[in-house]
Amino acid sequence: MLKKDETKTISFLIQCEDKKGIMQKCVNFFTDKDFNIVHCQQHTDSYENMYFMRLELDLSDLKTSRKELENEFSIFANENNLNWSAHYSDYTPRVAILVSKTSHCLYDLLARRNQGQINCEVPLIISNHPNLEKIANSFRIPYHYLPVTKETKPEQEMKIRKLLKQYDIDLVVLARYMQILSSDFTNEWEGKIINIHHAFLPAFQGANPYQKAYERGVKMIGATAHYASKDLDQGPIIEQEVVRVGHELTPKGLKEVGRDAETRALAKAVQAHLESRILIYKNRTIVFNAKH
Amino acid sequence: MLKKDETKTISFLIQCEDKKGIMQKCVNFFTDKDFNIVHCQQHTDSYENMYFMRLELDLSDLKTSRKELENEFSIFANENNLNWSAHYSDYTPRVAILVSKTSHCLYDLLARRNQGQINCEVPLIISNHPNLEKIANSFRIPYHYLPVTKETKPEQEMKIRKLLKQYDIDLVVLARYMQILSSDFTNEWEGKIINIHHAFLPAFQGANPYQKAYERGVKMIGATAHYASKDLDQGPIIEQEVVRVGHELTPKGLKEVGRDAETRALAKAVQAHLESRILIYKNRTIVFNAKH
Amino acid sequence: MLKKDETKTISFLIQCEDKKGIMQKCVNFFTDKDFNIVHCQQHTDSYENMYFMRLELDLSDLKTSRKELENEFSIFANENNLNWSAHYSDYTPRVAILVSKTSHCLYDLLARRNQGQINCEVPLIISNHPNLEKIANSFRIPYHYLPVTKETKPEQEMKIRKLLKQYDIDLVVLARYMQILSSDFTNEWEGKIINIHHAFLPAFQGANPYQKAYERGVKMIGATAHYASKDLDQGPIIEQEVVRVGHELTPKGLKEVGRDAETRALAKAVQAHLESRILIYKNRTIVFNAKH
Amino acid sequence: MLKKDETKTISFLIQCEDKKGIMQKCVNFFTDKDFNIVHCQQHTDSYENMYFMRLELDLSDLKTSRKELENEFSIFANENNLNWSAHYSDYTPRVAILVSKTSHCLYDLLARRNQGQINCEVPLIISNHPNLEKIANSFRIPYHYLPVTKETKPEQEMKIRKLLKQYDIDLVVLARYMQILSSDFTNEWEGKIINIHHAFLPAFQGANPYQKAYERGVKMIGATAHYASKDLDQGPIIEQEVVRVGHELTPKGLKEVGRDAETRALAKAVQAHLESRILIYKNRTIVFNAKH
Repeated sequence: MLKKDETKTISFLIQCEDKKGIMQKCVNFFTDKDFNIVHCQQHTDSYENMYFMRLELDLSDLKTSRKELENEFSIFANENNLNWSAHYSDYTPRVAILVSKTSHCLYDLLARRNQGQINCEVPLIISNHPNLEKIANSFRIPYHYLPVTKETKPEQEMKIRKLLKQYDIDLVVLARYMQILSSDFTNEWEGKIINIHHAFLPAFQGANPYQKAYERGVKMIGATAHYASKDLDQGPIIEQEVVRVGHELTPKGLKEVGRDAETRALAKAVQAHLESRILIYKNRTIVFNAKH
Repeated sequence: MLKKDETKTISFLIQCEDKKGIMQKCVNFFTDKDFNIVHCQQHTDSYENMYFMRLELDLSDLKTSRKELENEFSIFANENNLNWSAHYSDYTPRVAILVSKTSHCLYDLLARRNQGQINCEVPLIISNHPNLEKIANSFRIPYHYLPVTKETKPEQEMKIRKLLKQYDIDLVVLARYMQILSSDFTNEWEGKIINIHHAFLPAFQGANPYQKAYERGVKMIGATAHYASKDLDQGPIIEQEVVRVGHELTPKGLKEVGRDAETRALAKAVQAHLESRILIYKNRTIVFNAKH
Repeated sequence: MLKKDETKTISFLIQCEDKKGIMQKCVNFFTDKDFNIVHCQQHTDSYENMYFMRLELDLSDLKTSRKELENEFSIFANENNLNWSAHYSDYTPRVAILVSKTSHCLYDLLARRNQGQINCEVPLIISNHPNLEKIANSFRIPYHYLPVTKETKPEQEMKIRKLLKQYDIDLVVLARYMQILSSDFTNEWEGKIINIHHAFLPAFQGANPYQKAYERGVKMIGATAHYASKDLDQGPIIEQEVVRVGHELTPKGLKEVGRDAETRALAKAVQAHLESRILIYKNRTIVFNAKH
Repeated sequence: MLKKDETKTISFLIQCEDKKGIMQKCVNFFTDKDFNIVHCQQHTDSYENMYFMRLELDLSDLKTSRKELENEFSIFANENNLNWSAHYSDYTPRVAILVSKTSHCLYDLLARRNQGQINCEVPLIISNHPNLEKIANSFRIPYHYLPVTKETKPEQEMKIRKLLKQYDIDLVVLARYMQILSSDFTNEWEGKIINIHHAFLPAFQGANPYQKAYERGVKMIGATAHYASKDLDQGPIIEQEVVRVGHELTPKGLKEVGRDAETRALAKAVQAHLESRILIYKNRTIVFNAKH
């Protein structure tokens, strides 16, 4: 189980109905192939009777092709009714960031990527407003301005979806993109779109959460990073952050202090996704801890 | 502004429409009578255009009777359209605690009272279940068991209200009392009933919040102490607490870790109320910081 | 891996130098004996090159005696250079609580035990002051008053150690016991004494941490639950809590708000210990998450 | 007390020995000149017997010159033994940022300034390393590279101090500048240099705090923003942040998760300073809440 920072790894994310012996079956599949298991994280949900596992293997132990390994595991998975996916640490995921006019999440994600905290490429930024092009330029990332009106919405969304294909995107990050996506879009990209909602879901779904938070007089405000689903603000939650607030703040003040919660929640969620640490079951996520 | 711990004080809680000069008018009212102002806390809500103030005066500077002071201030308040109340630190408020079967909030409040953290008398505990009588006995507090069925509910509530009068109660604390109060009751006791709801309001109002939190897959659970109003779980919020939770916890596990958030939120709210640090405006509270 | 609440379990805590294949070796030891592994938690410390594991087995799968199982595992452990211990969920650990004059941690622990949050017996409370006897009485627990002066200290400590033997104690909790223990005592009870220090260690070791915190002007105060070792306030940390504080608080005020951090940190640490979720390596602890 | 966002204000920060009537004396000074008091925040430290006040006045009520007002207040202050300073919201403070190789605090501060969260100009960035010049360029801020060796240290520091004068700097922010400043420098700039230390002071003063935190096995790591003083890491604390950490993290992992605490603590401290909300007394700060 020795792991150095430079160690390249394969991560298997596995889920199935819980049953006796499932763990060592999986473990043995890989150790029989002489893999060193760098990490093994598991979760048994006794309420749902489900078993979740993340296995991280030393990639240098791979004697065959990746394709072959996946084919063999696929047979094993079918026999045991496993849902699974495989992820390779030497592949750098490609992320598209969608924004509107607000810049704090964009700045934060790009700064983290430049610092190596988030491992991805960002080949394009898409926006329905021209405002943030200057920031994109300063980070030397192409900026696609696709303004949206009621009439042009479907057409512009198709252009977005085309761009995502064209740029070979793996993950879409809605970094305060203030447009509702069609269910066609969210279905096609299920589990691959992360949105940041500026409230502590399920409180204050929909528009103007800070205004609503002020009116309700809450003593903490929050932010929620979640996978987008066809139902607005109702997809599986990945990460939540809160900030304590007092009576001093107006809706505008709440909005300002809420920014930090938004950037943190989104950054943590994106990092967890890109490190293949998230499993989705029903409307919930299992997020395994980072090991650094 | 010298204050020692033993200094006895009068606190005035004042609210009015914000206007130029209102602060020094109030300050001058008391300094003209040669009062030392021990503390002066204020809040201007520029969004609502309201002004809120808490003045703490040295009681030993009182040259007249309390009645007389209040009469004089009453005239001043009428002239200036102030809402106000006065509170004397040498009076020990009388608190009734209502519980059902769950004991953590009850234990916590009684322990804090015994340690002097919460300054009040608790002349009675009322419950719709017999379970917690042993705890009441160990703290030597009379326990009134008033079981509730659909049929007896109105009649039992009348008995409760009668007990509250009889025991001269100032504040009612619903320490996990699992019965909905009638609007007659909440209206009569407006701003004088504090409830603890086991969720981060406005999320998960109503029954079974931990079950709902599990199903929604939230990453933090919370508790909310608020004044009871005629609309269930919708009264003015005083204090909220959250606890970070992972995928490891079932609804039962969430309930267990949520207890600490409940006890803390309730204790802080009760303490702030008893120290006359709370003002209510519309559905929001202004809670001034404690000074110890 | 099915586990119901009532499932009785054996937990093995294992640590060794990290090496390839160690996980499945351990797993196979138990699955070869047809044990269902209810939980398996692991940690690889790549910095120290150490491997840590907690295996929870279904006790009803045990075909032999406990003694026999332990003997067999002992042989396996020797072959593989494992440090280990075994814990049975049907055994209720026996805890002695030591206090001085301050009651909040004592109240909190006893309330949690009565509510079933902490699973233990408390056959005795020991104190160097008579003050808290009333609380012990209200919970019907024998109270041993052993006053300490400079001269009687060694003699009184011997009495304490004798009582711990006599009552068959498994864990000693210093719930604000304001006496320094001899290194003989802490060595004999290594890893079996949990102390609460009223500061965020390593800040403010020793006496009067709230006074020091006031003088240093910190913006958060904390509490630290740790295993007692021969060096005062320097044993392995189990749990820490902090509370944000403002300039409003004097040393006395800091002490008051610090209480909650103390009770929470101590309760969590005691619960983790009693649920056999803690491993100690050098001066650090591995604390596995609770599964409820 | 009506205040709109665009209202220009004067803030007076006042401190003196606490005495009866001091508040209304100050209030009356300004209301006699027909000033509207937009905010009035106060703190009485009963332990030190000191009184602290922040008065925010409507600048449009100023009938004389700023100079004249300050002269008159100066006479009043002398009579009453007040320490004070005046700050005008229509003046944009000039901030120099000093960095070494680490970029997260720099990115964060510049992004916040561009978003209007922090109101200041940043006319220059100074560094002892060339690494972050690219970031400075992307924000179009001059970058002064002043490498430091043991021999050149005094000479380079003199160059820095000259630059600060030349650029008319009001505040120096050490955003992970890994050089110890001379006491000449810190004395000259007393209360005008904010440093971020990557630990929860007073724990882990000096070099390599994350390594020390790992070795001590703490369960939370922190960051501290404080005014630099002649004693390293011992100046008045402005803001502290903590992050809960588990056994999973190596020193490198602690360093990574600590970044967020560093950026937040530093940003909040800089914002509070630039909004004239901080008073320093002995080695402590009074930080009044923001009102937005």
